[in-house]
Amino acid sequence: MAEDIPTLIDTIARNARQASLDLNGASTQDKNDALQAIARSLESNRKTLLEENKKDLDAAEENGLSDAMIDRLRLTHERIDGMAKGLRQLIDLPDPVGALIEKKNRPNGLEIRKTRVPIGVIGIIYESRPNVTIDCAGLCLKSGNASILRGGKEALHSNRALAAVISDALSSSPISEHAVQLIPTVEREALNHLLTLDEYIHCIIPRGGEGLIRFVAENSRIPVIKHYKGVCNLFVDSSADLEMAEKIAVSSKCGRPGVCNAIENLIVEKSIADSFLPGCAEKLTEHGCELFVDAEAEKILQHLKTQPAGEAEFAEEFLDLRLSIKVVDSIDDAISFVNQFGSGHSESILTADSKRAEQFLKEVDASSVYWNASTRFTDGFEFGLGAEIGISTDRLHARGPMGLEELCTYKFQIIGNGQWK
Amino acid sequence: MAEDIPTLIDTIARNARQASLDLNGASTQDKNDALQAIARSLESNRKTLLEENKKDLDAAEENGLSDAMIDRLRLTHERIDGMAKGLRQLIDLPDPVGALIEKKNRPNGLEIRKTRVPIGVIGIIYESRPNVTIDCAGLCLKSGNASILRGGKEALHSNRALAAVISDALSSSPISEHAVQLIPTVEREALNHLLTLDEYIHCIIPRGGEGLIRFVAENSRIPVIKHYKGVCNLFVDSSADLEMAEKIAVSSKCGRPGVCNAIENLIVEKSIADSFLPGCAEKLTEHGCELFVDAEAEKILQHLKTQPAGEAEFAEEFLDLRLSIKVVDSIDDAISFVNQFGSGHSESILTADSKRAEQFLKEVDASSVYWNASTRFTDGFEFGLGAEIGISTDRLHARGPMGLEELCTYKFQIIGNGQWK
Repeated sequence: MAEDIPTLIDTIARNARQASLDLNGASTQDKNDALQAIARSLESNRKTLLEENKKDLDAAEENGLSDAMIDRLRLTHERIDGMAKGLRQLIDLPDPVGALIEKKNRPNGLEIRKTRVPIGVIGIIYESRPNVTIDCAGLCLKSGNASILRGGKEALHSNRALAAVISDALSSSPISEHAVQLIPTVEREALNHLLTLDEYIHCIIPRGGEGLIRFVAENSRIPVIKHYKGVCNLFVDSSADLEMAEKIAVSSKCGRPGVCNAIENLIVEKSIADSFLPGCAEKLTEHGCELFVDAEAEKILQHLKTQPAGEAEFAEEFLDLRLSIKVVDSIDDAISFVNQFGSGHSESILTADSKRAEQFLKEVDASSVYWNASTRFTDGFEFGLGAEIGISTDRLHARGPMGLEELCTYKFQIIGNGQWK
Repeated sequence: MAEDIPTLIDTIARNARQASLDLNGASTQDKNDALQAIARSLESNRKTLLEENKKDLDAAEENGLSDAMIDRLRLTHERIDGMAKGLRQLIDLPDPVGALIEKKNRPNGLEIRKTRVPIGVIGIIYESRPNVTIDCAGLCLKSGNASILRGGKEALHSNRALAAVISDALSSSPISEHAVQLIPTVEREALNHLLTLDEYIHCIIPRGGEGLIRFVAENSRIPVIKHYKGVCNLFVDSSADLEMAEKIAVSSKCGRPGVCNAIENLIVEKSIADSFLPGCAEKLTEHGCELFVDAEAEKILQHLKTQPAGEAEFAEEFLDLRLSIKVVDSIDDAISFVNQFGSGHSESILTADSKRAEQFLKEVDASSVYWNASTRFTDGFEFGLGAEIGISTDRLHARGPMGLEELCTYKFQIIGNGQWK
């Protein structure tokens, strides 16, 4: 089979491109009908889906995957219901395609309309959660894009079964069945070849761990929208409401430490470090949080068990109950620290001083910058997008939570009456 | 020197990153003062600029470069005036940074502001026109971006002199002199290394021929915004005003055949080919235009000297007085032809039928789609952007003419009052 992989991938990509051109003529109703058909098809194919998923689960156990990995892989009746519900929520969201973004009338009589249109063909590269297959297929479809899905090897049986369900539903809908296609092999050669097909595929969105994302970013000739990691910082300014500060510090670390919008560094202005840090650090410790502290914080927290923090800790996305603490002399130092160690995801200042808040909001370079709120709100639903395909820490095209509009581009439509020069 | 190149480039990139963070705090006045200082410095350093340019011109002649290449390389008093004038026009344009793009109030009391901000550090890779150095430096500066400029080897003396002028002007301005930096060597190793520095550089814009652009796109780990080529199509529908059609066909090919928004293919609906093509083809021939025709057109144009057109001709960006002619049965065939052979730049339909026009505007996949006007209007100034750094045939981030706003991204600024979950 080895020599056939590039041909197979070429065919998938060419078919996706044709499907994306056909989607430019599809109505909102057509797309919603297709989403509804997929939801129904999921519900009526539960048995097959669970059987195929069982094969992946058995293999995972045999291969000694961690409980957390196996849980991510698992399909249940409840999770199938969840996927169908997600598709029906997409039906209720407004169609982003065709919206007039801007209109200009030029002195020569030309009318220029900047109109939102689908990007075209989107490749999604992901790991072992089979629900990503349905979520991403649905988001791409609603936004008028054809999608090519490449999941992880652990979920191959589940993903093939889900792809069959989608393909079956599309074949009885007004949308081309090539609008959603799964790469049916997990050979690395298939992925490598896919990433070169910039003639047919317009955007790659990798979803998963940092290793996968770096691999895709370094090997793709197609533009990539990525989310590397969330090293989020919380700065407590000397004028902050310290009760609010303690509540936000504890909840934004300990509420759900494994997510990208949880904080990794707590930065405290020196003049309030003595009064704020001991109480806050005790609360964090009570929640089971391990503390890494700089020399200043160490002096204040001698009564607690801490470990020293240096550049490596400040730059780390812990993703669990560990937190670094840094004491700074001024807001300028806090901003420099955030711009040096943050990953451009979410950063927050707690302060009663609006001038300092505006400085932080302006000078901190990140997708989402907060004043007096937790970084945990960086999320497509919290931002009112209705759904989310990911959170971009890139700057081009989309930054922060990406919903249906961010899966679109625009084109100019220019109406004249014979203008030739 | 070879082993020092990566270190040199690293230093330039790190300094640019710091300058871009500093630019986040710069006011519109600061940036305009810097632009004015560069304009004045250009005018007062004419002698050095012309002397250094002479070295490049002498080398170019010695190396047997074409007259057209040498003309592109040449600086004159008039061209120096033109560069200074361009900078002063940028001063008059509105500052894109800080504009509120969208504001939302969420049910939990959070206010979410989507605000326009600079991209950060932009790398411009270009060829032998020294004016690109000033144009791009000015556009990046006005939009709050630090720029790293890498010009072609033919213009190295000129570019070094221009960079010294910029650096001198910035050092007496409120803006860091690292806000604009030239790569002082044209070693390929320097470019290759630059394209890996995604930690410091956020966007690469290549400007030049297709070979340069492909090289950059294939070797860059940093996101690239590119303009490959302009294979633009003009479709004359059966209901078109044929007088308008002839005028637009001739002017959009022969007006300035060497530019990207000139047409390469004329597509004519079969039912009017007999009445339209002979007259139009004669006019084109009178303008010295060579015609490549499909079998249908060949039958109609037997009295003229033509050559056969196939896929290779339809896909070619001629950039001179050559044009391919294709006869189609229907608007559907015209749209398929445009989507197959066009490069996603500019496409036009001439028709009196608004339904067909809307179909073409919707289904043709290109940055700029026209109804009853010439493709030649795809241009930053014609679109009212005031200035242009290029025309993107990509889909992500910017599509079509790119002005100051397209050199920006956005960030979310979120204002709360203690929200923690």
